[in-house]
Amino acid sequence: MTTTSGASGSSRIPIAVLISGNGSNLQSLVDAQEALESYEIVVVISDRPDVQGLDRAHDADIASEVVDWNLFESRVSFSDAICDVAERHGARGLVLAGFMRILSSNAINRFTDAIINVHPSLLPAFPGAHAVENALAYGVATTGITVHFVDEQVDHGPIISQESVMVRPDDDAASLHSRIQHVEHRLLPLAVAAFAQGNLTVDGRHVRWGTSTPETEKR
Amino acid sequence: MTTTSGASGSSRIPIAVLISGNGSNLQSLVDAQEALESYEIVVVISDRPDVQGLDRAHDADIASEVVDWNLFESRVSFSDAICDVAERHGARGLVLAGFMRILSSNAINRFTDAIINVHPSLLPAFPGAHAVENALAYGVATTGITVHFVDEQVDHGPIISQESVMVRPDDDAASLHSRIQHVEHRLLPLAVAAFAQGNLTVDGRHVRWGTSTPETEKR
Repeated sequence: MTTTSGASGSSRIPIAVLISGNGSNLQSLVDAQEALESYEIVVVISDRPDVQGLDRAHDADIASEVVDWNLFESRVSFSDAICDVAERHGARGLVLAGFMRILSSNAINRFTDAIINVHPSLLPAFPGAHAVENALAYGVATTGITVHFVDEQVDHGPIISQESVMVRPDDDAASLHSRIQHVEHRLLPLAVAAFAQGNLTVDGRHVRWGTSTPETEKR
Repeated sequence: MTTTSGASGSSRIPIAVLISGNGSNLQSLVDAQEALESYEIVVVISDRPDVQGLDRAHDADIASEVVDWNLFESRVSFSDAICDVAERHGARGLVLAGFMRILSSNAINRFTDAIINVHPSLLPAFPGAHAVENALAYGVATTGITVHFVDEQVDHGPIISQESVMVRPDDDAASLHSRIQHVEHRLLPLAVAAFAQGNLTVDGRHVRWGTSTPETEKR
C-alpha cells in the first residue's frame, strides 16, 4: 500500500510484522523501535484487508501489504506469498503479532529460528486460538504470556520469555485479555530486540539469552 | 505409632496429612498451625515406613501411622485403609503433602471437596510425577506451584491457588525444585487454613475464596 520507509543505511535488523486485526502488538513494536535501536519494521503484512493494524502502519510511515488468505488455494501458497513479500522488503525475521494463521513448514524453514510469536498463555498450557477463554474455563489462578520461536507445531517452539498474570475472581475474558496484552506490549519488543541484537541462541528447546555476535555485525 | 495429641476441645478443623517422604510440606503445615488457628493435624499417614516425615510428626507430638502401599492388594483397599485411619482420628480433610500415590475414586468420594494436593507446576502444564524435570526439559521460562482439590483425574481438580516461579538460566532440577518448595511451604498452609475456615467454595472447576460459615461453626 505504501512503500518501505527504508532500512538502507541503518544498522538495524529489518523485520516484517504479520497481523490479522487491530495490531496493538504491532503498535508496541512501533513505539519501542526507536528506543531499542536494534530492529526496524520494514513491512507490515496483513492476512486480510481493512484492519486497524494497516492504519497503524500507515500512521507510522511503514510499508504495508495485504496477503489475503481468502485469495489463496492452500496454506502453502499463502505462506510462500507471505515470505516473498517479507523477503522483497529485506526482512530477516518475522514477528507474528496477533496473526491468526498457521504458516507452512516451508515458510518456517525459509526463516529458521527467525519467526517470533506471542501467545496469551503460559505455554504449554492453553495452546490454540482461545487461550484466555480456555484458561478461565479451566479455573486457573495464574496464567500469562509466552514469546517463542515458531516451529512446525502450533504454539510449541522454543520459549524466549514468559511472564505470569494473576487471574482475578471477577475476571471475564475481556478484562483478563486486557491485562495480558499489557504484558505482551512490554515483552514482545524486548524479545524482538534481543533477537535483532543476536542475543538469543536456540539450542533444541532452550533459548539462551546472552551476548553474542550482533546480527548487525554479520551483515 | 504415637497417639493423637487431641483435637478434642479445640475449635480447629482436624486434618490428616499424607506423606511419602521427607515431609517438608508437612513441616510447613506444622509450623503454621498455631499462627493460623484454623486447622489441627490429628494424624500423619505415610505410605511407607522409615521416612523422615514420620520423625517430624513425632517431634511435633502428632500421631502418625504407616499404611504400607506394599502390603495392599489394590489401590482401592489401600485407599480405603487410608480413609479408615483418617476417620478414626476424626479428620475432616486430607492434605496430600508430597504423597506419591493416587487415591481411589471411593476415597475421593469419602472426602468430597476435602482432599487438598500441592503440585510443583502451574497446572494444567506438567502434571505427573516429574513436573519440575519436565518443565526444565520443555524449556519454560516460568513455572510455579498449584494447590488444588483432588478429583478423580490426576493433578486435575479445582484450583485453590497458584503462584509462578521464574526459571533461571543455570537452574537444574534440584535448584528449581528448591525454590518451588519455598513457595509451596507458604501457599499450602494458607490454602488449608482457608479450607478449614470454610472460605473455599467449589463451583464446578472454580474455587471461590470468600467468607462463609466457618466449618468450626457447623460442628
